[in-house]
Amino acid sequence: MSLTTHADAVAAREVLARLPKHHGPVRTPLLPVGDGTRPLLLKPESLQPTGAFKLRGALHATAVLDERTRSRGLVTYSSGNHARAVAHAGRVFDVPTTVVVPHSAPGSKVAAARSLGAEIVLVDVAERERRAREIAAENGAALIPPFDASAVIAGQATVGLEIAEDLRARGVSEATVLVPVSGGGLISGVGAALSGADVRTRLIGVEPELAADTRQSLRAGRRVDWPVRARTRTIADGLTAQPSELTFAHLAAFVEDVVTVTEEEIAEAVGYLARGPGLVAEPSGAVTTAAWLHRTRELPDTTTVAVVSGGNVDPALLVSSLGG
Amino acid sequence: MSLTTHADAVAAREVLARLPKHHGPVRTPLLPVGDGTRPLLLKPESLQPTGAFKLRGALHATAVLDERTRSRGLVTYSSGNHARAVAHAGRVFDVPTTVVVPHSAPGSKVAAARSLGAEIVLVDVAERERRAREIAAENGAALIPPFDASAVIAGQATVGLEIAEDLRARGVSEATVLVPVSGGGLISGVGAALSGADVRTRLIGVEPELAADTRQSLRAGRRVDWPVRARTRTIADGLTAQPSELTFAHLAAFVEDVVTVTEEEIAEAVGYLARGPGLVAEPSGAVTTAAWLHRTRELPDTTTVAVVSGGNVDPALLVSSLGG
Repeated sequence: MSLTTHADAVAAREVLARLPKHHGPVRTPLLPVGDGTRPLLLKPESLQPTGAFKLRGALHATAVLDERTRSRGLVTYSSGNHARAVAHAGRVFDVPTTVVVPHSAPGSKVAAARSLGAEIVLVDVAERERRAREIAAENGAALIPPFDASAVIAGQATVGLEIAEDLRARGVSEATVLVPVSGGGLISGVGAALSGADVRTRLIGVEPELAADTRQSLRAGRRVDWPVRARTRTIADGLTAQPSELTFAHLAAFVEDVVTVTEEEIAEAVGYLARGPGLVAEPSGAVTTAAWLHRTRELPDTTTVAVVSGGNVDPALLVSSLGG
Repeated sequence: MSLTTHADAVAAREVLARLPKHHGPVRTPLLPVGDGTRPLLLKPESLQPTGAFKLRGALHATAVLDERTRSRGLVTYSSGNHARAVAHAGRVFDVPTTVVVPHSAPGSKVAAARSLGAEIVLVDVAERERRAREIAAENGAALIPPFDASAVIAGQATVGLEIAEDLRARGVSEATVLVPVSGGGLISGVGAALSGADVRTRLIGVEPELAADTRQSLRAGRRVDWPVRARTRTIADGLTAQPSELTFAHLAAFVEDVVTVTEEEIAEAVGYLARGPGLVAEPSGAVTTAAWLHRTRELPDTTTVAVVSGGNVDPALLVSSLGG
């Protein structure tokens, strides 16, 4: 199994730069927070056109398909932001998209994929990957998995390239980078990109305490399976998947540790991001800020980068996090 | 009276680039919104460390003071974001700051300036400029006006440089740029920067219907005074000042028109920006998006840039705009 590299990230960025600008990924800045005594820099992937980093991987994986395969359409399985990202990619390349969604998926995220023209197939959560593979086989369509594919990881890796560049431009020579972990596609890519960058970074994953399978797996040195019913208790609806063999290999190679945060800390961080930096974050995107706020003693005492991975929050949850 | 130029904007950017990176202005991106049929690009100045573009002008005006003057401290008058920006500048340069604030100023904005170490002097709104000048004279401190100064306008002009660069990078050759208007410092600077840029732009101001003094003034060809009581009816608490002679001269030179939006449209735009692009905007920052949403027929049919000038919204107002 070959790991994604810094060179793969650079190549992915070049592919993404050739897309129509209104529909490609945004080059997100680092946003400084606080008075500098404990420097925090937010990487607001919530500002992507589909509201999450997932756009990078989905567009890259779609762009590198051969044209004939791509013309037969895209298929994926996802409960949220990846579905929307693939639907967006289908629209950019003008090909049909089918998204297999579990009945439990957040309604607003499913609606977003549908409004981009994707066909929605609802199934039981345990069935979703199998059903997506079936549809791909039936139609000859291309499967764009949410994380278990090198082309997807390479797209997400462009987040890491941008972080490294901006740290260098700021004169920061050493930093801790916090990334939410679910299936592990984002942190795998960020790790690959940072591994070849000329900035010293320590890569730390963040999980909800209620879905801390990856922390347990990394400490055990092998993938530990948590039942779906356990993993889906958290309000961080985008962090309920588990690493694949491929992403776990990246995690083992690149990730120093995983810290966990509580449900209350996640909700509080959603409110903090809205009131302070002015970012609407979804719970899954706010876990890294929650870790910075509440896990100080578990984190290295360096400049910290927190990837805010997405912003597609239920308005009612945002309102309650603001004390409304 | 000499107008700020494109060259002044370029020089200001160089000054700002030499500041400590954690405290200088963020290079904000353009954020594409929608499916591209009516392309909108948001310029989210709400993401600045103090939550508004005001940081640019305040830091630039402070940076270009001679060191001896600066060491005696900074004084300003403002009801909100400029106060916070000057307090921030005082902290960056480690000099004392006094902010003269009207009793009517939003409590949260005053608290933000105070928490940055500024001394707050509360006065009647009609007294604030006079009192600030008095304090400056007494202490030998430097007055940093909210808009009526070339060094402030040149700092705000860096917003325009970035817009022009990013439009060019996107291959957009013609665009309409929407900027909120109050005292006119931001739109003066943006106009100066765009006047020397190699992108064809039409600069349009946006005001609340309830504080539309500038629209009336531009159409009359001379400054028309609206009583404070009239101008302060709007929820856009940052848009209640009027252009000075200096900024009005810039407006006359650079601004094609001013459109107005209603209170309901402003509140709706605050909700739209939070639910869609994921930006927390204050009413004053949301007026340009409100114009894009509701004044289609008054705007040229080109790519539109909407400057979201600030994000320091009262959480209760954000909640109500989200239907909470």
